[in-house]
Amino acid sequence: MDPDKIRGILESLQAGSTDVDDALAALRNLPFQDLGYAVVDHHRALRQGVPEVIFSEGKSAEQIIGIAREIARTGQNVLMTRIDAVKAAAVQDALENVRYHAMARIATIEQRPITPLGKQPVALCCAGTSDMPVAEECAETLRMLGVGVERIYDVGVAGVHRLLARRGVFDRCSIAVVVAGMEGALPSAVGGLVSIPVIAVPTSVGYGAALKGFTALACMLTSCASGITVCNIDNGFGAAFAAARILKSADRF
Amino acid sequence: MDPDKIRGILESLQAGSTDVDDALAALRNLPFQDLGYAVVDHHRALRQGVPEVIFSEGKSAEQIIGIAREIARTGQNVLMTRIDAVKAAAVQDALENVRYHAMARIATIEQRPITPLGKQPVALCCAGTSDMPVAEECAETLRMLGVGVERIYDVGVAGVHRLLARRGVFDRCSIAVVVAGMEGALPSAVGGLVSIPVIAVPTSVGYGAALKGFTALACMLTSCASGITVCNIDNGFGAAFAAARILKSADRF
Amino acid sequence: MDPDKIRGILESLQAGSTDVDDALAALRNLPFQDLGYAVVDHHRALRQGVPEVIFSEGKSAEQIIGIAREIARTGQNVLMTRIDAVKAAAVQDALENVRYHAMARIATIEQRPITPLGKQPVALCCAGTSDMPVAEECAETLRMLGVGVERIYDVGVAGVHRLLARRGVFDRCSIAVVVAGMEGALPSAVGGLVSIPVIAVPTSVGYGAALKGFTALACMLTSCASGITVCNIDNGFGAAFAAARILKSADRF
Amino acid sequence: MDPDKIRGILESLQAGSTDVDDALAALRNLPFQDLGYAVVDHHRALRQGVPEVIFSEGKSAEQIIGIAREIARTGQNVLMTRIDAVKAAAVQDALENVRYHAMARIATIEQRPITPLGKQPVALCCAGTSDMPVAEECAETLRMLGVGVERIYDVGVAGVHRLLARRGVFDRCSIAVVVAGMEGALPSAVGGLVSIPVIAVPTSVGYGAALKGFTALACMLTSCASGITVCNIDNGFGAAFAAARILKSADRF
Amino acid sequence: MDPDKIRGILESLQAGSTDVDDALAALRNLPFQDLGYAVVDHHRALRQGVPEVIFSEGKSAEQIIGIAREIARTGQNVLMTRIDAVKAAAVQDALENVRYHAMARIATIEQRPITPLGKQPVALCCAGTSDMPVAEECAETLRMLGVGVERIYDVGVAGVHRLLARRGVFDRCSIAVVVAGMEGALPSAVGGLVSIPVIAVPTSVGYGAALKGFTALACMLTSCASGITVCNIDNGFGAAFAAARILKSADRF
Amino acid sequence: MDPDKIRGILESLQAGSTDVDDALAALRNLPFQDLGYAVVDHHRALRQGVPEVIFSEGKSAEQIIGIAREIARTGQNVLMTRIDAVKAAAVQDALENVRYHAMARIATIEQRPITPLGKQPVALCCAGTSDMPVAEECAETLRMLGVGVERIYDVGVAGVHRLLARRGVFDRCSIAVVVAGMEGALPSAVGGLVSIPVIAVPTSVGYGAALKGFTALACMLTSCASGITVCNIDNGFGAAFAAARILKSADRF
Amino acid sequence: MDPDKIRGILESLQAGSTDVDDALAALRNLPFQDLGYAVVDHHRALRQGVPEVIFSEGKSAEQIIGIAREIARTGQNVLMTRIDAVKAAAVQDALENVRYHAMARIATIEQRPITPLGKQPVALCCAGTSDMPVAEECAETLRMLGVGVERIYDVGVAGVHRLLARRGVFDRCSIAVVVAGMEGALPSAVGGLVSIPVIAVPTSVGYGAALKGFTALACMLTSCASGITVCNIDNGFGAAFAAARILKSADRF
Amino acid sequence: MDPDKIRGILESLQAGSTDVDDALAALRNLPFQDLGYAVVDHHRALRQGVPEVIFSEGKSAEQIIGIAREIARTGQNVLMTRIDAVKAAAVQDALENVRYHAMARIATIEQRPITPLGKQPVALCCAGTSDMPVAEECAETLRMLGVGVERIYDVGVAGVHRLLARRGVFDRCSIAVVVAGMEGALPSAVGGLVSIPVIAVPTSVGYGAALKGFTALACMLTSCASGITVCNIDNGFGAAFAAARILKSADRF
Repeated sequence: MDPDKIRGILESLQAGSTDVDDALAALRNLPFQDLGYAVVDHHRALRQGVPEVIFSEGKSAEQIIGIAREIARTGQNVLMTRIDAVKAAAVQDALENVRYHAMARIATIEQRPITPLGKQPVALCCAGTSDMPVAEECAETLRMLGVGVERIYDVGVAGVHRLLARRGVFDRCSIAVVVAGMEGALPSAVGGLVSIPVIAVPTSVGYGAALKGFTALACMLTSCASGITVCNIDNGFGAAFAAARILKSADRF
Repeated sequence: MDPDKIRGILESLQAGSTDVDDALAALRNLPFQDLGYAVVDHHRALRQGVPEVIFSEGKSAEQIIGIAREIARTGQNVLMTRIDAVKAAAVQDALENVRYHAMARIATIEQRPITPLGKQPVALCCAGTSDMPVAEECAETLRMLGVGVERIYDVGVAGVHRLLARRGVFDRCSIAVVVAGMEGALPSAVGGLVSIPVIAVPTSVGYGAALKGFTALACMLTSCASGITVCNIDNGFGAAFAAARILKSADRF
Repeated sequence: MDPDKIRGILESLQAGSTDVDDALAALRNLPFQDLGYAVVDHHRALRQGVPEVIFSEGKSAEQIIGIAREIARTGQNVLMTRIDAVKAAAVQDALENVRYHAMARIATIEQRPITPLGKQPVALCCAGTSDMPVAEECAETLRMLGVGVERIYDVGVAGVHRLLARRGVFDRCSIAVVVAGMEGALPSAVGGLVSIPVIAVPTSVGYGAALKGFTALACMLTSCASGITVCNIDNGFGAAFAAARILKSADRF
Repeated sequence: MDPDKIRGILESLQAGSTDVDDALAALRNLPFQDLGYAVVDHHRALRQGVPEVIFSEGKSAEQIIGIAREIARTGQNVLMTRIDAVKAAAVQDALENVRYHAMARIATIEQRPITPLGKQPVALCCAGTSDMPVAEECAETLRMLGVGVERIYDVGVAGVHRLLARRGVFDRCSIAVVVAGMEGALPSAVGGLVSIPVIAVPTSVGYGAALKGFTALACMLTSCASGITVCNIDNGFGAAFAAARILKSADRF
Repeated sequence: MDPDKIRGILESLQAGSTDVDDALAALRNLPFQDLGYAVVDHHRALRQGVPEVIFSEGKSAEQIIGIAREIARTGQNVLMTRIDAVKAAAVQDALENVRYHAMARIATIEQRPITPLGKQPVALCCAGTSDMPVAEECAETLRMLGVGVERIYDVGVAGVHRLLARRGVFDRCSIAVVVAGMEGALPSAVGGLVSIPVIAVPTSVGYGAALKGFTALACMLTSCASGITVCNIDNGFGAAFAAARILKSADRF
Repeated sequence: MDPDKIRGILESLQAGSTDVDDALAALRNLPFQDLGYAVVDHHRALRQGVPEVIFSEGKSAEQIIGIAREIARTGQNVLMTRIDAVKAAAVQDALENVRYHAMARIATIEQRPITPLGKQPVALCCAGTSDMPVAEECAETLRMLGVGVERIYDVGVAGVHRLLARRGVFDRCSIAVVVAGMEGALPSAVGGLVSIPVIAVPTSVGYGAALKGFTALACMLTSCASGITVCNIDNGFGAAFAAARILKSADRF
Repeated sequence: MDPDKIRGILESLQAGSTDVDDALAALRNLPFQDLGYAVVDHHRALRQGVPEVIFSEGKSAEQIIGIAREIARTGQNVLMTRIDAVKAAAVQDALENVRYHAMARIATIEQRPITPLGKQPVALCCAGTSDMPVAEECAETLRMLGVGVERIYDVGVAGVHRLLARRGVFDRCSIAVVVAGMEGALPSAVGGLVSIPVIAVPTSVGYGAALKGFTALACMLTSCASGITVCNIDNGFGAAFAAARILKSADRF
Repeated sequence: MDPDKIRGILESLQAGSTDVDDALAALRNLPFQDLGYAVVDHHRALRQGVPEVIFSEGKSAEQIIGIAREIARTGQNVLMTRIDAVKAAAVQDALENVRYHAMARIATIEQRPITPLGKQPVALCCAGTSDMPVAEECAETLRMLGVGVERIYDVGVAGVHRLLARRGVFDRCSIAVVVAGMEGALPSAVGGLVSIPVIAVPTSVGYGAALKGFTALACMLTSCASGITVCNIDNGFGAAFAAARILKSADRF
């Protein structure tokens, strides 16, 4: 995978310090750990520069604990998303230094200092109070990734003057993450105001024709503001990660 | 149907000027004209105070001509909606005084003066140039119903300053009809700015996740601006008619 | 936002009674109160002439109480919609003068007299007993907005004689709000009978092909009765608000 | 399949007039004719008492001609449905006595007298002029099946008085077939008026939320009038056939 | 509504035994009873010859009891459908002679003998054990309507020999009601075997692509067996009612 | 059904050792057992060479016990799928030798040795830990059918190196069953690597646009890797059975 | 990718006959040919033992010709699917030995003898004449892959006796490919009759609720016959390829 | 809108060099030009630093020409997207220096040099030849925005070795734009390989379950690779614009 590493192996072989079978094994042997029910990829942290994340929905508390323990063993920080209060309590009983953020449904283990990422903070907008859990999932993930956050909450388009009143905040931010349910029109309004990247997150807030977030999702995808990109419904974590991809690649832009 | 008319029939019967069979027939005999393929309801004009309308989609040119001739025979004005250029030409060949409005896909026969309806004009907003055919269907229908129109075109939410710059127009209008495709967010923005009735019309403009207008429709139904009501996709005619229902009932409000 | 207010600020500046920084601040400073998780817009009451409404679904009891307290502090009436019995009890414990309407799922705080709105009452039709919660949400909202209501309940189209027997009620009403689930055909029947505005509200009543209200919604949008407008599924509040928009603008029609 | 026939074969075998191999073959040998691309089932006419029908959509003119010729060869009447004008002309060129009914998109070959079926005619209602092609497909199929028809056209629920004015027609009919597009509410209204069987046929008439007939379909399935049954969208043929199933089984009811 | 009744009223008026106001009132005064939340239509029993039915889903136990009491007061039988065990117990506490059929989710009050309807029984097929609750809802409704039932259960198309083995049952039945979930193919197979009416009922049995019954519904609507008609998902009651419409109209066929 | 058996019956008849009525009965009399609510088909084991399976969802514990007892009575093994812990406990109380596999939601009765099926094991891949219940349903079903399994778990396409690292496993397997939720891309990747049959199983893992498994399902159906076939969502049982169909027919390939 | 090849490269390196840079390049250098708009993978024929296939939909005639020429250059056979008559003619003009199969919409170049694959033929069933183009796409693909075919056409479930009459054919076949549109029930019936693998292909034949093939697709996925697997709508090619995957792996079963 | 500009106006007013009415007008007077059917926003170029774009679908050739002429008048470059060959020819006739890129369906007017944007090029991947029109729309838009492009075409996941062979390209790129139809799995594979931003664009390539691009869209939204963001179906333009938003904001990261 890593050309330098392959070159290294090949050079050892050429130099006679490795034989063919070992070289073959080394080429195949990637640094992951097989737990039976999950393969922990210690290599990913190296490849992408981020902590290992455990998506907890659909996993038992036992599975979450097993994976978290394996990650934590190497000294990395751990981020457990979509974890409900009952499972979080079980994890806190089993492992040390686990903090639970109820609204964001995130549990974390911080064992090493978080390296700051990005010069300016991310602007985190949300349309209504009911969208806050998704926004906070994004905020907590950004924090674990070392990214600063400026919150601009409860600024739905039906009161567009609220958004305009706070537009100065965008001037000191690097990226806008915009979280909205119901008709999901806020990213269009933000996208028309600013020229920084806009990452839109639809939420499942609303009823009837809100279609559990699909109306907001479709609205964001068809936005008349150009260059907006969209994450899955309620995926505050994904938006944070997308922002981190941008910030980590700054030297290429 | 009409209590006074029924009372009149009954009183004639009591007075002996009508016999039972005639009374029975009169009670049954509503003023409509059966063409075989369509029943022209001359009574509706009386009931609802509007010209008869022919929804032309799915009807042959011959059927449209037949119905229009029957209506025109009584001196009423005729409004033919959703009529393409080919059928319109056939109607113009067959009947007199037929005007065709290509963008609005409407043909009209005006034989009597149109009675003005409403003190102030209707504000007709549309989000983009591609929404104009639907907006113009609404405008031409309003004209035939005697209602004045103020156009506010190309004011999508991605450039919310455009809308704000023209918001003074709403101060001199009675009702806002807001036509928008793609993400359909304009009615939310308008609904947050004004307190007059807002009638939203989604259009089938856009591609992919625009879902032929269903995204805009769902967006409008879930608007965070309270009290917005919605018409079918591309139904500029229906919005005009809904506005006329309001204006005609002014003395009850 | 308000041209007169802006003119006032500018004239103060010209007159020397304000300096540039104050003028700039005044232009930015809109009258809303930021609670962190919600922005209470005291200005909206001025702009739209209605009490502040709290959509309670997806908000915690604590958040509802916080917002309601901030609104109530200014002496306004408060309308909390979509609030279940448990949260309502919490609000009643925390605040004074809170009344709960279980069927309508609405809690209210009335501190000032409600100004009557509209000359004639709104006719509130519903197709079946199961549609009553939505109809009552509409009724209670109308009451808080000062609008009178005439109920015409349980008049589905499968027994069209029931509707016809009560059609005289429409003669003394200003607007028809028609609530229906299942096939949602009642607005078409009402729309054919009356010339006043018809606001249709689909409900999620029914099973299978009723599609949780989407069949009724689509039925109403495609009604063959002209000029019917539609609200979101189960949105009795929205229909009431739409009626109020009409009644408040009566002097423009 | 046919117990009497099997008994006959078995008795021949017992009597020695057939040997085992012939009996085995006879049991397998059903009276159908394999054309390679289609199997013409002469047996069905015996089993169900109806002419063979060719659903022409998706078949080439050559295939239609081949199947029709094979059926006609045995002296039966032939009913070709969903056949457009071009293919119909090709069939008329190739075979004799072919009549084409353009609105119904049906071609027929009548070689033997049609046996009348049913004491009273079927009431065939349709909501609007645009629904007529589907209604006429039903009418022409009923005619080929020997069933009389009474048409009640253009009686949509938005003008419910039209339907009521003609309700006497139902008193002299056996079954109501109700064809409607857009919101598809007519079967509910008819179903509430009459106690005879109601067979509903949604049509693809309408636009936007009419969803190419699915709104009408769902509306009919969720009708609040009890005991209505529904056919596929635009399936006038199927409704006629369902009516024939009822009429042919009269002696069992 | 009833021409003879209207004629009677008119003749009384002509004869002077009624005055105009009374005649007018009589014409308006239909025999239904308004409970506020429901209108009990004693007239329907006369019009359609069936007991009043209470669809219990979405109604409170109190509402069900109120409506049932009003119906029972006149000596009619009562059929309560879609009633869960808790509500049924409440009804049994409040009213006399209430029986509950748990699998069918039906409660009944029988106060008068049920008049037999139909010469031959209805064949009630179902594809799998999981479809039985819907089939039993149909069976119990048929029983209350006086119709006999022959059950043919667990005969899905994947074991088509099971169905063929029992096909003789159809020879002594008048109508086939076919209940099936998952792929819903049973009505096609039955429809190909028999020439009597086939009423298909999709059930919500199955998972994933079974789409809560919509796959079975669509399958039945598109059946290649001609003349099958379809009810809403899980609507065993509706199928029974549709069968009763046929049986009651036997003298017209 | 079985030609040899029919020939036997016919020969008995010819030989006079059977009379016509008995022959007729024998032809009709298939070896299944009617429990009223279910027909146990002992013949299927003969026809398809597999144990009888009880799909337990939607069946009561009593029904499951009744069917299982009838199967077990003949000495066959029993496989109960989709059975939750509560019902499984009831079955364990009522019958002997019942084992419950909680993750796979399968209960089994093994009374006779399982005959091994297939030379090489099936490769069972799954994309993530949350997909394991479906994969284990497949594994346990394969075990009961006598098929060996090699597990390749937690190899989603976002870490394609994990899959590549383990691709040697496929070299010693006969069939690949690939279980994946979310975007369901794993079968495409596997299908491009191997030339053995690939059976894809979408799971309902994921949220929002994962659409409860329909996104994975559609993804697999549209795979750019040729010749992949797909089972219903979460249908691990079906995939196992499809593999068994292949393995049992090996002598025909 | 290929362990032997990697070992070879490593051994050359160890032996000094290759240097590090060449070894590194060799490890990267896979045998495909980049045409700019398409990468022709000569390696796939080796890996999967099949001719290269060109999916022609969405490609210009020029692109098809370019890819076909590149493949043909190496002497392989070429299979062009989903190619309409106009593009096929262009390909025939540009390249030699191109044959076009209009119904199957397939063009082929045969330059080398096709190696027979499989002991027994594949049974290819289709429900109706309109499904034949998809069945023939499958048949022609199977022919190019060296697989024999037995056709069983026009055997829909509404005439289940047709299928039963021909069931002996399955006894001499290895795999059943079942093609069906409309309600798509044929695979269930076949799956219940046979124990060989059943590959189901839904077609887009039908109208209204047939949903362009999605009803048949969902029907097949939810089949009550166990172990049926399904291809994309109209994907006759895919079914053939899936059959070939089975036949080619025979020595592993 | 622009605080500095507002401050300037206010200071002029304070200084007496502007009067109140002029200041009020200046505050309202934004630099856009109203053509009646479109409002050209010269201000946007200033706000967002990009050329004005004309989305041509749904606009007449006359409207496109009118808008393009107004933009071109100010010396800016013009980008016309979604323009078919016929309209493009009309634009070329009417205006000077118009170039048409047929595959990308883009017309451009370049009057001023394009300023380079970004240090490293954007990697533009596409899964198959049929996805090229969308990829080229993206490429041409990037070119007009000054961004360099590296193409990685025809690297679908079914041949994952093709992608791996070219992964070195990503090392020298800033952002990955990944275009894919059918199952849309390519972004997941790329997202797992690289840590730079990944912008995914689903295309409408494929048939049946490809759902005109919605399967690819949903697949991308649910990707198991973290931090991928998604554009509307076929929206190559939007992806380019999103990339430009990132590159232009580089100094903030």
